[in-house]
Amino acid sequence: MTNHILSIRHGAVLEARLNRPEKKNALTGAMYDGFVEMLEQASSSNSIRAVLLTAEGSTFTAGNDLAEFMSISGDLAASPQSRFVRAITGATKPIVAAVHGRAVGIGTTMLLHCDLVYGTPDVKLSTPFVDMGLVPEAGSTLLFPTYIGLQRASALLLLGRPWTPRPPLPQVS
Amino acid sequence: MTNHILSIRHGAVLEARLNRPEKKNALTGAMYDGFVEMLEQASSSNSIRAVLLTAEGSTFTAGNDLAEFMSISGDLAASPQSRFVRAITGATKPIVAAVHGRAVGIGTTMLLHCDLVYGTPDVKLSTPFVDMGLVPEAGSTLLFPTYIGLQRASALLLLGRPWTPRPPLPQVS
Amino acid sequence: MTNHILSIRHGAVLEARLNRPEKKNALTGAMYDGFVEMLEQASSSNSIRAVLLTAEGSTFTAGNDLAEFMSISGDLAASPQSRFVRAITGATKPIVAAVHGRAVGIGTTMLLHCDLVYGTPDVKLSTPFVDMGLVPEAGSTLLFPTYIGLQRASALLLLGRPWTPRPPLPQVS
Repeated sequence: MTNHILSIRHGAVLEARLNRPEKKNALTGAMYDGFVEMLEQASSSNSIRAVLLTAEGSTFTAGNDLAEFMSISGDLAASPQSRFVRAITGATKPIVAAVHGRAVGIGTTMLLHCDLVYGTPDVKLSTPFVDMGLVPEAGSTLLFPTYIGLQRASALLLLGRPWTPRPPLPQVS
Repeated sequence: MTNHILSIRHGAVLEARLNRPEKKNALTGAMYDGFVEMLEQASSSNSIRAVLLTAEGSTFTAGNDLAEFMSISGDLAASPQSRFVRAITGATKPIVAAVHGRAVGIGTTMLLHCDLVYGTPDVKLSTPFVDMGLVPEAGSTLLFPTYIGLQRASALLLLGRPWTPRPPLPQVS
Repeated sequence: MTNHILSIRHGAVLEARLNRPEKKNALTGAMYDGFVEMLEQASSSNSIRAVLLTAEGSTFTAGNDLAEFMSISGDLAASPQSRFVRAITGATKPIVAAVHGRAVGIGTTMLLHCDLVYGTPDVKLSTPFVDMGLVPEAGSTLLFPTYIGLQRASALLLLGRPWTPRPPLPQVS
């Protein structure tokens, strides 16, 4: 397993910590694979009761590592990204995210599949898919409109500008 | 019919008033039965145009009467609680709730099935199901996420802390 | 085509401008037909990338022209209003609305099918269907509750009072 994602056990909680701060925690296939392994471990363990998702450094994650993402070929459904989306949407233990700084692209859409999301007051989410000519992933074109209406969702998904959630995300107290 | 729920007619409006203030309007089977009867009366009457749900005393309702609730046995679907949930979700006349003080558990989830909900500015809702080892009832795990997103819904349903709706519920003017 | 709705081309954008300010842009069958034609033109044109919906005068639209609306007879599904609703819900190019002043009835519910909605800070929406003995149209009894919850949606749809969106609609910058 890569050391770009750390697996840290705190009693009944399994912490998955993004640990590639020199690249703003841009997500590689190895990091996706590591997170999927941790979710599988949590699912099969009676002693793990929740998964905590955190990040090292100044920002949560810049999203996909673009250099690696551009090189995906063959069966997209078998890619680490796709396995990650299936794993996070089908997780059997609660996933708690603690977000700070920027969360870009899949860094934002993955939060739609976490059960609880805490954030610092200055957190900035963004979904700049159109800028990259991509379709928004992880069910976000369904879930965002369901949660905040098509019009406000389109403003996020189509325009791609960073935003701070209002009301603010709950903070860790 | 128990006098712990009062049926009061105001012209075209049938008021159902929770009337067990000495127990914070904790809901008994007899109170559920009384409310279901009133909904059936409203449904079959051409002269009743709406149902108004109110409560006596300092608080709306503490939720289920726990002593009685713990003693439910046999066919859960035939319990007064289950009949109440079916009746309120299938009501054919608009139900208007006027809420004050605390509304706990089913006192909150029943509001998801009222058509209009008015509240005092200090109203406190709460859904402490996890504390009691219960699954949230009345479709609340579907409806809360649809209305406010999974993450904010989970903060209410999983953590069980009291909250005041934001923006505030409309007040009776 | 009526001159009560103008078709104006700005590069890749096709602007549909309601242009009956002396009647607060009350919508006639000819105006619906004109808008449907523009959506069909946008759909079949590779050079039109988005449709912009605007209005002349002091207000966005008073909704249906009631004198004409009352005279609909025969097959309702073949009426210009019904063709408009099918066209706007099935549009293949993004529709951007720029709203000011009042938007009444279908003037509000059509916005639920626009992809992006911008508005002046003083915009007032309203859905006074009950006052006219009408069922709310254009999927609004489904979409409003999905977006803001049944209770807040009912306050808009059943009571019919004008409201200003909160948070405000994004403004054109």
